[in-house]
Amino acid sequence: MCELGECLQCENLDCFDDRMDKMHEECGVFGVYSTDNSDVDVAGLTYYGLYSLQHRGQESAGIAVSDKETIVFHKDMGLVPEIFDKVVLTHLQGTMAVGHVRYSTTGASRRENAQPIVVRSRNGQIALAHNGNIVNASLLREQMEDNGTIFQTTNDTEVLVNLVTKHGITSETIEEAVEKMMRDVNGSYGLILMTANKMLGVRDPYGIRPLCIGKTSNSYVIASESCALDAVNAEFIRDIEPGEIVTIENNEITSIRAFNNKDTKLCIFEFVYFARPDSVIDGASVQQSRYEAGKRLAIEHPVDADIVIGVPDSGISAAIGFSKQTGIPYGEGIVKNRYVGRTFIQPSQGMREVAVRIKHNAIKKTVEGKRVVIIDDSIVRGTTTRRIVKILKKAGAKEVHMRVSSPPLKFPCYFGIDISSRKELVADKLSVEEIREMICSDSLGYLSLEGLLKTPVDSRCGFCAACLTGDYPIEVPAEGDKFSCGT
Amino acid sequence: MCELGECLQCENLDCFDDRMDKMHEECGVFGVYSTDNSDVDVAGLTYYGLYSLQHRGQESAGIAVSDKETIVFHKDMGLVPEIFDKVVLTHLQGTMAVGHVRYSTTGASRRENAQPIVVRSRNGQIALAHNGNIVNASLLREQMEDNGTIFQTTNDTEVLVNLVTKHGITSETIEEAVEKMMRDVNGSYGLILMTANKMLGVRDPYGIRPLCIGKTSNSYVIASESCALDAVNAEFIRDIEPGEIVTIENNEITSIRAFNNKDTKLCIFEFVYFARPDSVIDGASVQQSRYEAGKRLAIEHPVDADIVIGVPDSGISAAIGFSKQTGIPYGEGIVKNRYVGRTFIQPSQGMREVAVRIKHNAIKKTVEGKRVVIIDDSIVRGTTTRRIVKILKKAGAKEVHMRVSSPPLKFPCYFGIDISSRKELVADKLSVEEIREMICSDSLGYLSLEGLLKTPVDSRCGFCAACLTGDYPIEVPAEGDKFSCGT
Amino acid sequence: MCELGECLQCENLDCFDDRMDKMHEECGVFGVYSTDNSDVDVAGLTYYGLYSLQHRGQESAGIAVSDKETIVFHKDMGLVPEIFDKVVLTHLQGTMAVGHVRYSTTGASRRENAQPIVVRSRNGQIALAHNGNIVNASLLREQMEDNGTIFQTTNDTEVLVNLVTKHGITSETIEEAVEKMMRDVNGSYGLILMTANKMLGVRDPYGIRPLCIGKTSNSYVIASESCALDAVNAEFIRDIEPGEIVTIENNEITSIRAFNNKDTKLCIFEFVYFARPDSVIDGASVQQSRYEAGKRLAIEHPVDADIVIGVPDSGISAAIGFSKQTGIPYGEGIVKNRYVGRTFIQPSQGMREVAVRIKHNAIKKTVEGKRVVIIDDSIVRGTTTRRIVKILKKAGAKEVHMRVSSPPLKFPCYFGIDISSRKELVADKLSVEEIREMICSDSLGYLSLEGLLKTPVDSRCGFCAACLTGDYPIEVPAEGDKFSCGT
Amino acid sequence: MCELGECLQCENLDCFDDRMDKMHEECGVFGVYSTDNSDVDVAGLTYYGLYSLQHRGQESAGIAVSDKETIVFHKDMGLVPEIFDKVVLTHLQGTMAVGHVRYSTTGASRRENAQPIVVRSRNGQIALAHNGNIVNASLLREQMEDNGTIFQTTNDTEVLVNLVTKHGITSETIEEAVEKMMRDVNGSYGLILMTANKMLGVRDPYGIRPLCIGKTSNSYVIASESCALDAVNAEFIRDIEPGEIVTIENNEITSIRAFNNKDTKLCIFEFVYFARPDSVIDGASVQQSRYEAGKRLAIEHPVDADIVIGVPDSGISAAIGFSKQTGIPYGEGIVKNRYVGRTFIQPSQGMREVAVRIKHNAIKKTVEGKRVVIIDDSIVRGTTTRRIVKILKKAGAKEVHMRVSSPPLKFPCYFGIDISSRKELVADKLSVEEIREMICSDSLGYLSLEGLLKTPVDSRCGFCAACLTGDYPIEVPAEGDKFSCGT
Repeated sequence: MCELGECLQCENLDCFDDRMDKMHEECGVFGVYSTDNSDVDVAGLTYYGLYSLQHRGQESAGIAVSDKETIVFHKDMGLVPEIFDKVVLTHLQGTMAVGHVRYSTTGASRRENAQPIVVRSRNGQIALAHNGNIVNASLLREQMEDNGTIFQTTNDTEVLVNLVTKHGITSETIEEAVEKMMRDVNGSYGLILMTANKMLGVRDPYGIRPLCIGKTSNSYVIASESCALDAVNAEFIRDIEPGEIVTIENNEITSIRAFNNKDTKLCIFEFVYFARPDSVIDGASVQQSRYEAGKRLAIEHPVDADIVIGVPDSGISAAIGFSKQTGIPYGEGIVKNRYVGRTFIQPSQGMREVAVRIKHNAIKKTVEGKRVVIIDDSIVRGTTTRRIVKILKKAGAKEVHMRVSSPPLKFPCYFGIDISSRKELVADKLSVEEIREMICSDSLGYLSLEGLLKTPVDSRCGFCAACLTGDYPIEVPAEGDKFSCGT
Repeated sequence: MCELGECLQCENLDCFDDRMDKMHEECGVFGVYSTDNSDVDVAGLTYYGLYSLQHRGQESAGIAVSDKETIVFHKDMGLVPEIFDKVVLTHLQGTMAVGHVRYSTTGASRRENAQPIVVRSRNGQIALAHNGNIVNASLLREQMEDNGTIFQTTNDTEVLVNLVTKHGITSETIEEAVEKMMRDVNGSYGLILMTANKMLGVRDPYGIRPLCIGKTSNSYVIASESCALDAVNAEFIRDIEPGEIVTIENNEITSIRAFNNKDTKLCIFEFVYFARPDSVIDGASVQQSRYEAGKRLAIEHPVDADIVIGVPDSGISAAIGFSKQTGIPYGEGIVKNRYVGRTFIQPSQGMREVAVRIKHNAIKKTVEGKRVVIIDDSIVRGTTTRRIVKILKKAGAKEVHMRVSSPPLKFPCYFGIDISSRKELVADKLSVEEIREMICSDSLGYLSLEGLLKTPVDSRCGFCAACLTGDYPIEVPAEGDKFSCGT
Repeated sequence: MCELGECLQCENLDCFDDRMDKMHEECGVFGVYSTDNSDVDVAGLTYYGLYSLQHRGQESAGIAVSDKETIVFHKDMGLVPEIFDKVVLTHLQGTMAVGHVRYSTTGASRRENAQPIVVRSRNGQIALAHNGNIVNASLLREQMEDNGTIFQTTNDTEVLVNLVTKHGITSETIEEAVEKMMRDVNGSYGLILMTANKMLGVRDPYGIRPLCIGKTSNSYVIASESCALDAVNAEFIRDIEPGEIVTIENNEITSIRAFNNKDTKLCIFEFVYFARPDSVIDGASVQQSRYEAGKRLAIEHPVDADIVIGVPDSGISAAIGFSKQTGIPYGEGIVKNRYVGRTFIQPSQGMREVAVRIKHNAIKKTVEGKRVVIIDDSIVRGTTTRRIVKILKKAGAKEVHMRVSSPPLKFPCYFGIDISSRKELVADKLSVEEIREMICSDSLGYLSLEGLLKTPVDSRCGFCAACLTGDYPIEVPAEGDKFSCGT
Repeated sequence: MCELGECLQCENLDCFDDRMDKMHEECGVFGVYSTDNSDVDVAGLTYYGLYSLQHRGQESAGIAVSDKETIVFHKDMGLVPEIFDKVVLTHLQGTMAVGHVRYSTTGASRRENAQPIVVRSRNGQIALAHNGNIVNASLLREQMEDNGTIFQTTNDTEVLVNLVTKHGITSETIEEAVEKMMRDVNGSYGLILMTANKMLGVRDPYGIRPLCIGKTSNSYVIASESCALDAVNAEFIRDIEPGEIVTIENNEITSIRAFNNKDTKLCIFEFVYFARPDSVIDGASVQQSRYEAGKRLAIEHPVDADIVIGVPDSGISAAIGFSKQTGIPYGEGIVKNRYVGRTFIQPSQGMREVAVRIKHNAIKKTVEGKRVVIIDDSIVRGTTTRRIVKILKKAGAKEVHMRVSSPPLKFPCYFGIDISSRKELVADKLSVEEIREMICSDSLGYLSLEGLLKTPVDSRCGFCAACLTGDYPIEVPAEGDKFSCGT
């Protein structure tokens, strides 16, 4: 068992790079179709919608607007409120809008890759916003290149829009072209496609990525998460179903169920980490799912302790659930600095010793002299976890019992999670006991897969948990084919 | 009693301007004195120190550095990580540094008013960083102007540095000059003064604003709050005492107790709202004080309910305390969007209806069909509170019982709290029952003054609660003399 | 004849918008191929090359670099030194580079339209930089769209790169594909195409736009004008010939003469206005050509006067020539403010009276009491000319004789000149005498077409003067088909 | 005599830093007093006024506006059109305005030093804009510091405003206080002082720096140069006299001649280099003075040659004069890139060879095979001159005869010219023949002092030529006391 002294010497500077220690590769999409041409500020609604989806991507954002004749757009690197101001929004007049927020792990994240992608084609202008990842994008790209197609970005989205356009030649409708595209591609996608006069919402056949639809008194709204419907005061209508193409045109919604998958596979990490707690996905409340995970964790890995705390923000709900289940009081033990942003300067080597408590700090009064249970949603590399355990011990915690509200991460994800950090998955290399030793906690317990899959109470769908099991719903490359941060 | 229907029509657009609905006028100061000339990156430490004090001021920030010969500085409008990058910090070489973060309510917040203020004087260069407010600044300014002094800012800090310099002519030491300055001014101040080769920490005679001192292996650190000591891994030594001048020079700390006030008056709102929960001020934990307030609130204003929730972030601790005291389960009922910043576009009139849930949203699963107790730290204008009650009711809460962990705000503050929003203090115009009606809650209870003053457990000092009582520790102007957002 | 009094009341505010009063739609291209892999900073050379071509386009600029494997690029809106700094250039490492500066008249000039355009295709990555205009771009675009191609910009350049890629399928080499593309398109182009490992310079069959090639001790350089070769100390090798494809590969230059046009048609306005005076195009010195134009103007439109002055900068050379021919002394009579830029605020209506001499001012001592000949290169709308005549008269000129070193502009240009300002061509609506009256000069003389075509002394080519004659070298649309500012 | 070969190897990279090779430390001031309260956009006029004075300072600029009650201001680093946009100007409402453009040589040029300086004092708010340099500023600063005054900038201007304020205590009027200030300070100044309701223009007793006054139909205007009067269509009234205080108040001008110097000493370099050619200072035309210098240079240093050219822009007028006097034809031989700005990247060591012709290039056709006379206004370090000679020889000039339209610079200037570059004055170290050898020209001739002083034809004043003679009009420090780039 590790000694406090040793534990307090954090030899790994990487532990400050929290971005590396949260798996993440997500995007958010949002669309508005006004049924009342004159009165709706569709760009403004999209601004607020994207703002509520900002947690799904902080690298770049964009909004495209159609006035039923022309599509204009604005996109750039940065947060939604950094990219759009009143002047820019004023120039985005129209009756439909589609927006996108994008996450990327690559340092060389590029403005060219910002979405929505807007193109001119035989079908007129098309704007496409995509959340997800296309597994066979490279292959499709190659095939199209062989036929003379050029690509200007590394986005999978550009592959999708080319496929739709090519199939358009032999299709009666754009929906037919989209359906053909869906048969070509393997992967995850929640996508919104806008032509000059209609809007389509499309979800992949397995429903790996979420997508839902709502309405206000004079608009239809499509969004990655229901919290974005709330943000614009839209009423939730329903989730778009796996394999479904929803069309909004002439103020009406129609639907094509292109695939009739019984065996749906919503990404379980939407509940564990990605989605906002106030969202409801496929019938299940994200917050309740996390709370439930805490309760199950308490049953699976009980411990005698004085206080239960959570790692803000994603560990809080589970901690409350754990407390509820065990009767051990819930408390606030860790403070997170709210002002971290992209421009924050990582501590240099020389700052290593002094800068441990910059991003997180312990509340001494809560943990001093106590046996502490601390809950986080997942462990990726283990370095942040190790740092937090260290902070708690330094603040006087007598014991620190780590509980993780999901099973060990062991396999690459091909449907949206950052591949690059994958190489460093601690659970791929170490046993649970070895991880406990590495993070210097007094005990460590992971929620079982079985337990996790029961947490989305009332959910109407099945789940993809391939990153935990290696059991992929669709064919994936034999080895780690390089994925672009497509979307 | 208000009807749900009416309640859901929020006729007041101002409710989105949350800044107006939180009283706030604070600043943060931070200083480092390296006892080991070559090896400490004092600007880097100050960067992290200010970063942990960012909650005390988001308008402007600055760092001044002395290499024992010359003081250089950089300051600008914006957040700490926006103003400082690696290149700027590299140009701030020295063995001492003083930093400042500043809050301002005025639209015309000006770059000229950023701190530290750095001047050349008969004592050489002086840098001064100030948290607090000088009540008789206008009078002192006038007197000095009559003697030919000019002022280039509207900061009280410029008054202070002029006083120190003038008194310097008849003083043996800078400490003597500072002591004379302290006799001239009425007001609150936690200030750090740096000359080319020494650093002073000075706290006003009543100790209205906090200031503490710590050390690392090779530096002394002065900061507004202890969380900033933690951020740079400094050990807490002690709070600077009310009326005390601490000097760090030649690697040693000396102290002058210029005033020997028994009747100290730490601002009670440091515990209610201003300070970070992981800080400890004058012996009392901020988080524990808030938790305690929740418990006392439960005793003073009990209610039969199904769930207790808090308004993030400052109402959370009290909600946990309320739950502990009553046994009513604690839950997460409100989500706050973490990406609000200075550039966020306020919803226009036309967006009024749709944009209610942009900054806060309810978690339906938590509150639907339930009798909800919701706790906030204070009510200023009441519009945000009203909006949050509305959101909860719309999410299906059967009853909403508002509990406030401090007494009604009724009087102007002359020591640091924003005066301009004061005019709109709802408690100055309405009774508790009238406020309840206005915010549409089913009941409303404020913590008593007596109760509040007991919440800073283990505190070694008395408190200023003049904004609640009108009982000012020092003479204040008869009427609302215009205060600059001095500091 | 106009009266001085009336003349001094400038009722046309537009006269301040000098941009509208210079016809202009040009771009500049620049490429470097290092024959010495390790030692040449190709991005740095391109920076200086583009900087010397900045007069050809101030809206956007870009540089793409190949390290023989991958092409990376950076492009943005603004001037070359605004877009590129040391950090950006450092990230552009490679052994070949291609750069572009772009002019656009449209208010909605867009970042997406910046060049070089960089795509991925079956031939790998391709970067293309284009100066010129494709007359049948819309038609070609439509045809390709019908076959499923999408377009992401409104640049003609994207049409070109798609054509090259499509033809690539049936071609042995990229040169063959380029040659096929040349047979498809009608229009003007000086273009540089870079694949991962070779660089092509291509000039349209009529040689409407210039393109030349040079070498340094360890590089080959391609540029729109020879002044850019000088800027990087490259030795001029030769102009690329009309219809020629030059390939630089494996450190060697090879050439394909795809078209063998005897009847070349270099744009005469390269000599009149576009090119820098220190450039030599197809054997003729730009400065000498302008000087010669002044001499010929003096012969064609002599006048008895005391002094000859030029409108800076493009009227200066001709004024010196006019002086030389006539013996009338040359002097400086007009000063131009050198600090005009994109962000300059145009005088508002209320400023009309006071703001006449902001951009140009007269030197009173030079013109007072004198009979002044003033030379400009061309008159587009006439408003700037009118303003300058007015300034001279106000400064005391006894007579003002306007001489223009090119014939009246009467016809639209389809090969690169801004179409939008064309509608306002004063010579299209008024006779020479009417223009004289409108600009309030005492006489007015235009250089004859015959005269103009003789000014490029030693030129080895024929000229396109369609904007003066309506005689287009290639088929153009029947009416003013909308041209994108392609390039 | 130098060999061409050697000459073409420029071993001194500094030659690219043209800023270092032009002596320069100037500023420009501009003020407007509206006699018609409602209708004049004083900030807009000042914008255009400063824009026409931009050549006097490109580092920072500012505008302060008084609405007769309050003075507000905006200032920042950068060019006038970069700092001010429509929104900023709209916020600067008032009936009087004073503006400033500032030059600085120090790398650490600081925003704090931007002008006008605006202070609060017993006289209310005062804005001060200053062009010039105070020789005894350090001493005065020290004296005031001893009396408890603090300084927040390193500007001399802050010394001036403090002096005025101190003297204000014992003065009846602000004019009296200004007069007392004038008796305290030694140095050069053209300054504009604005209180809430009046505006003063003040020129130093020797008239070293220029200042003039004009009027429009509803405003009075004060400016450093008459070209700024022209820019706002103001009629020139007269130069403010050396030692004169002009007051504009209650729509009237009054004047106090505080000093009655017969022996005025206008800086001769205003004519040689600083001022714009269209300005008239103390009766003499700047352009004519330079033209005259060329004629005199031709008489003093005749040479048998084929063409006369000038270094743009400041050598052009003299070149035309030289040509006129000798009959040798004038031509354009050097092109200057117009897009150089603060952000231009200086060529690195590795670029030395290639980057010779970036900023200037020769026009081969003009100089090839010819004996060339080239005229520049002055030689500071000689490196730029050397580079230009080299460029001409490389372009084929048979002989290059350098003529300089002012005498050798040998002494420090204490009244406004950059001291730092002074150390490198080539004429301080080398004889004329040695300089000729260093710059590789075939001959070299400087205009004599006697000749130079006769060039400002019709001037009504005497001149300071101390930088050429060492004969200072007022007492200066024994050695190179450090001067701030005061103003």
